[in-house]
Parts: sequence; structure tokens; C-alpha cells
Amino acid sequence: MDQPFYFELLHTDKHTGARRGRFHTPHGVIETPAYMPVGTQATVKAMTPRDLDDVKAQIILSNTYHLYLRPGHELVKEAGGLHTFMHWDKPILTDSGGFQVFSLAGINDIREDGVMFRSHIDGSRHFFTPEKVMEIEQALGADIAMCFDECADPNKDHAYAVRAMDRTHRWAERCQKAHTRKDQALFGIVQGSVYPDLRIESAKTLASMNFIGYGIGGLSVGEPKHVMYDMLETIRPYMPENKPRYLMGVGSPDCLLEGVMRGIDLFDCVLQTRSARNGLALTRNGRLMLRNKTFEHDFTPIEEGCDCYACRNFTRAYIRHLIKADEILAAQLVSMHNLRFSLRLMEDARAAIENDCYADFAAELLGRKLF
Amino acid sequence: MDQPFYFELLHTDKHTGARRGRFHTPHGVIETPAYMPVGTQATVKAMTPRDLDDVKAQIILSNTYHLYLRPGHELVKEAGGLHTFMHWDKPILTDSGGFQVFSLAGINDIREDGVMFRSHIDGSRHFFTPEKVMEIEQALGADIAMCFDECADPNKDHAYAVRAMDRTHRWAERCQKAHTRKDQALFGIVQGSVYPDLRIESAKTLASMNFIGYGIGGLSVGEPKHVMYDMLETIRPYMPENKPRYLMGVGSPDCLLEGVMRGIDLFDCVLQTRSARNGLALTRNGRLMLRNKTFEHDFTPIEEGCDCYACRNFTRAYIRHLIKADEILAAQLVSMHNLRFSLRLMEDARAAIENDCYADFAAELLGRKLF
Repeated sequence: MDQPFYFELLHTDKHTGARRGRFHTPHGVIETPAYMPVGTQATVKAMTPRDLDDVKAQIILSNTYHLYLRPGHELVKEAGGLHTFMHWDKPILTDSGGFQVFSLAGINDIREDGVMFRSHIDGSRHFFTPEKVMEIEQALGADIAMCFDECADPNKDHAYAVRAMDRTHRWAERCQKAHTRKDQALFGIVQGSVYPDLRIESAKTLASMNFIGYGIGGLSVGEPKHVMYDMLETIRPYMPENKPRYLMGVGSPDCLLEGVMRGIDLFDCVLQTRSARNGLALTRNGRLMLRNKTFEHDFTPIEEGCDCYACRNFTRAYIRHLIKADEILAAQLVSMHNLRFSLRLMEDARAAIENDCYADFAAELLGRKLF
Repeated sequence: MDQPFYFELLHTDKHTGARRGRFHTPHGVIETPAYMPVGTQATVKAMTPRDLDDVKAQIILSNTYHLYLRPGHELVKEAGGLHTFMHWDKPILTDSGGFQVFSLAGINDIREDGVMFRSHIDGSRHFFTPEKVMEIEQALGADIAMCFDECADPNKDHAYAVRAMDRTHRWAERCQKAHTRKDQALFGIVQGSVYPDLRIESAKTLASMNFIGYGIGGLSVGEPKHVMYDMLETIRPYMPENKPRYLMGVGSPDCLLEGVMRGIDLFDCVLQTRSARNGLALTRNGRLMLRNKTFEHDFTPIEEGCDCYACRNFTRAYIRHLIKADEILAAQLVSMHNLRFSLRLMEDARAAIENDCYADFAAELLGRKLF
């Protein structure tokens, strides 16, 4: 193939919408469905790149908003791009900052041209336009860049959601026009809030624009999970079959399983590493608050059968001690485990899809209701 | 050899007191002179055991006082001992808690029998006797245990220092009597405060007690460095030639070089990892405050020629970004570097001693006055 990016749809599960695919990028292949660890500030918190290799991460996500503010995209470019800067030579995806300017920064003003916001670091004023965001993402140089979008509050009414969606579509066009890097794939983002008609319209509009892949944004932002699942069902027929589908900011274990079932190929979520730093471990038998006294004399690993470095070598009792003693190693070990847990869940999901038994696989795990 | 511990004095530098040795323990050999990274709470802060292997640590130190308070020596014993608990299968040395009860805890009372102190964690009252400390250290199961000693304030007068030293000697006898583990070496500790006559008396008294090795305690506790260096010269003739000599709690780069010159075989110091967490890197061209703006666009490694993971793969600009962004990875990378820096300094010192050029080696580095 001449083109640097292509998605192979290898197989679709016979009984669900789950897809087994392979996305080719300049920094390697991503077997899908895939979970992407989040490296907000050009580092997956408490993980070295070799730790990420060790948990078998295929791709990581980093945040345009954060890197623009600190250290600045120009500096990252000067360093040789994000891969070189953070010493990660596998694929990277950068979001567009759309979600962060609406959730994290203080917004002054949303205009047709762009968004005025205040830095969460020092309160300084900044203006993001689609063109500016494309400049930043191209400077960062990830394999996948996301269009700048408006992530509308799900509590806003239909009329507002229409305006936000239409603006997102116009911004997507401007992004396409401004995006020139051939070694970077630009993904469009389906919006439309909690309104099925708008989601369908957004999926159709973006499909007609022929992006290399598609994000689904503005879900899991406060609405109940079943609303998100229904929405994924609703838009599925309108998403191009031969393009990767990325459910943005979603990746708890139950959402991973439910999302895959509905044809999602890519996920990202900070839950794995954030909860790890609070001593919460994910396992197929439920969450463990490792700080609890019940683990004081528990000399078993976090999760029996897990092949991560933490589970191969350390006990719950030791990790509990580290947590109680405020030791950094606790965050390192539990992060490793939670990432490996999620990546292994996706590995097993991929195998289940190949064997047309994804429904049983997911049902068995979801039935434990332990996530 | 039948005995689990023995020290081979391989060579003494022709022009200085520097010694090249090899100390055999049940968990492996320590090439001396050696620097021991400090794992206060059963973890060298921000380092996994594989990181410690990677920087080529030969032995680590852990703290009896801290482990007694949390998680408790009984728990560590139940886990199978400290090696198993923290997953470190190379040698470990535990201090006796003597220094900590005098520096960190609130002391209520020093009696002939032992010391009453308050926990720095919860203020609870505890009583350490030589017998109790031996019970704790034997439960922890390090390769090397230190006798319980009184670390006298260097500002106290000669009369007080005599009383403290005599008590330390009586406690050393009680420790010897209470210590029964054959797979653990017990080291005596030379005290005597800042008084040369007492230091000599202490060295002689302990030498007559035939310990497997000797700590030198109560130095670098506030007195000027030249006082410590002079004291090492003073006691050198009275230290048994064929036993390892451990200068407790000392290990800044200049002290390592000066200590080796005066016949010290073992060192430990928290400076390497503590300063790393403050963004301070050690190099042979001086200390670097990596937070400084001067490193913003510096795309060179922390130290050219260093073989550590941080220097092989990351730039000062990236690490500065991590520090500014409060990322844990900064502590991980700078700790790796500072440990490797110190361990490599000792590797080079050993080679210099073997070649009888330690004086030149040390003088050249000390001449830079950059530590």
C-alpha cells in the first residue's frame, strides 16, 4: 500500500456488532479493538515507555490542550515531535483540545471563528480556532489528529445542540482544509449531544467528508450509560464500515465491553491510571481498594493469572503497605496492573471476536457486575 | 568457604587508603567500595526492583525503625522476609533504628536498658532495647544487621559522649548475645562523637568483639566535613583490616570520594533519590537544577556519557517539562540517573584502586568542586 494509513476490517462477530480490525500507521499497526492509555502531558502518569511496552500498549493518547499550554507545541516540534520528545516510537493519537477547553479551562466565548478560553494553569487567555488546532496537532506530529469540535453540554436543549453540531461540521471542514501532513491521519468527530436525530445527521455528514477515521465525541459526559449505549446502536448503521471508530474518553471495563459490542474500535480513558494512583485496582472479579485492611496479610497478587510485572512479583499486602506509606511505587505498580488489565481485556475481546463468541465473552464478564 | 559471610581484601591502593574488596553474602557478592541506595520503607523511592537492577545496584539499605512502625516486622516476617516482601533478591542491609529514634522520633527517655520514643507517624510510644532491635532485624531478615547504638549529638560534651559510647558498647554486647541468625551478619558501630580519643577507644573495643563488619556512626550529623574526614583518618589504623567498613548515612559525591580514600568500603545516602525528587541531578560536571529555564530547549541528556535509562532516552528539556508539570516520571528518571551516577562513580573508583591511581582519579573529580 502506498498510503500511510489504512484500516483492515478483518472480521465482524456473527452475533454482535463487534469488529476485529487492524489499523496501519507510520509508527506501526494497531490491532483493534484497542484501548489507548492516556499520556496527558506527554507521559502516561508513573509509567516509563518501557513499562508501556511491558504492558503491551499499542498506541497512546496525548492531549493537545495540555501540550499547547505546557511545554508548548513549538518546543515539542523543536524536540523532533512528540514521539521523540517523550521517547515513544509506537503510534500516538492527539485529541483536539475541544473537550478540555469546554471542561477544564474557563471559557469566555464560543464564536463561529473559534473559542476563547483561559488556561487552567495561569489564567492566561488563549484562542483556539480549527486552523490553530491543526497547526498545534501537526507540530506535535502524532499519527492520528482529531478535528477541533464543540463538545456540547448534554443538558442543553435540541436547538443549542443543532447549532453546536453545525458549527462542529463547519469546523471539521476548516480542519480538513488546514491539515496538510501526509504522515498524520485526521479523524472527524461525530457530535449531536443526546439527540438521536442529530447524531445520525452528524454521522452522515462526516461520512460524506471521507475522513480516515471517526471519533464519537460528547458521550459519557454526564448522561446515563444506557443513553450512550443506545446512541452507539443508533449511529452504527451510519458509520462507514471500512473506517476505524473511536469512542472518545470512554474506557471503564464495562464500557469497553459494551462499546466493542456496538462496533467501536478504539477507546481511551484515564480511569486506569487515575484510579491506580488512588490505590484502586481493576480485576475480573471486581475492583479492589488495596488500601483496605482486608489486604493487610494478603500475600496473593492483585489478580491471579495476570501477567503484568506487578502481579508477577508483588503481593496485595506489599502494595497496601506502599499505599499506606505514600510511596510512589504504589502508583507505578497499580498503574501497570490497571493498564495491563485493560489491554489484556481487549486482547481477549479480539480473540473472542475472531471466534465469533464475543457475545458470550462479554456477557460472562458483564454478568459479574463487578466493574 | 563454609561461612556465609566473608570479606576479601583484594587490593589496597598504593598511594591512599582506598581498598578494593569483595564481601560475600547469602544473596550475592558486593564489590567494594560500594554505594547502597536507600529503601527506607521497603522501596527505594520511585524505583522498581528492575530499575535497581538496571542501574546496577548491588545492595540496598532499608530502615528498621520505619519497617517496625509500618508495616511491622511481624508482617514482613510473615511475608517471607524483606527480600520476598519487596521482591529484591540481592543483598540488603538494615540499620538498627538507632539514628532514627534520635533524629526522627520524639525521644522520651534514654536508659541503660533502651530508649523510649514516640512514633513520627501517630505519636504512639515504643521502647527499643538491643534485644528488641535484634528481634526486629532478624524478623526482617536482611543479609546485614546493624547493632543498636546511641547516636550522640555532636554538640554534647566529652563526658556525655563517653557515657553514650560506653552504653553503645554494652548494647553491642547485648546485640551479639541476642543475635542468632547464621544467615545474617551483625555489624558493630563505632561511635565516640567528635572526640578522637573516644573514636579510637570505640574502634578498639569493637574490634576486640570480632564483628563480621563495622559501621562508623554519628558522623555527618551536623559537624563540618573536614572533621569527619579527619576522624576517618584517626580511626583508620584501629579498624580491622580484613573486615568491611561502612560509613553510615554518608554518600554525597564528594564524601564518597573522600571516604573511599580513607578506607571506607560501604556507604548509604538518601541524597541521590531525595534530591532527584526535587529535580536536582548529579553529574561529573556539577549539579543541575533541571527545573531551571536554562534547560528549556536543551535537547541533550542529563549527563553525556551516562549509560542510565534516563540519559539513553530522554533530554533535559523533556525532564524539565515533567518537573514543571508535576509528573511522577520526573522523579523516576532523575532518581535512576542519580543512582546510576553514584554507582558508576564507585565502579570507576574500584577500577582506579585496582590500577593504583585512585589519588589522581579522586583529585581530578574533587578538583572540579562541583558537587
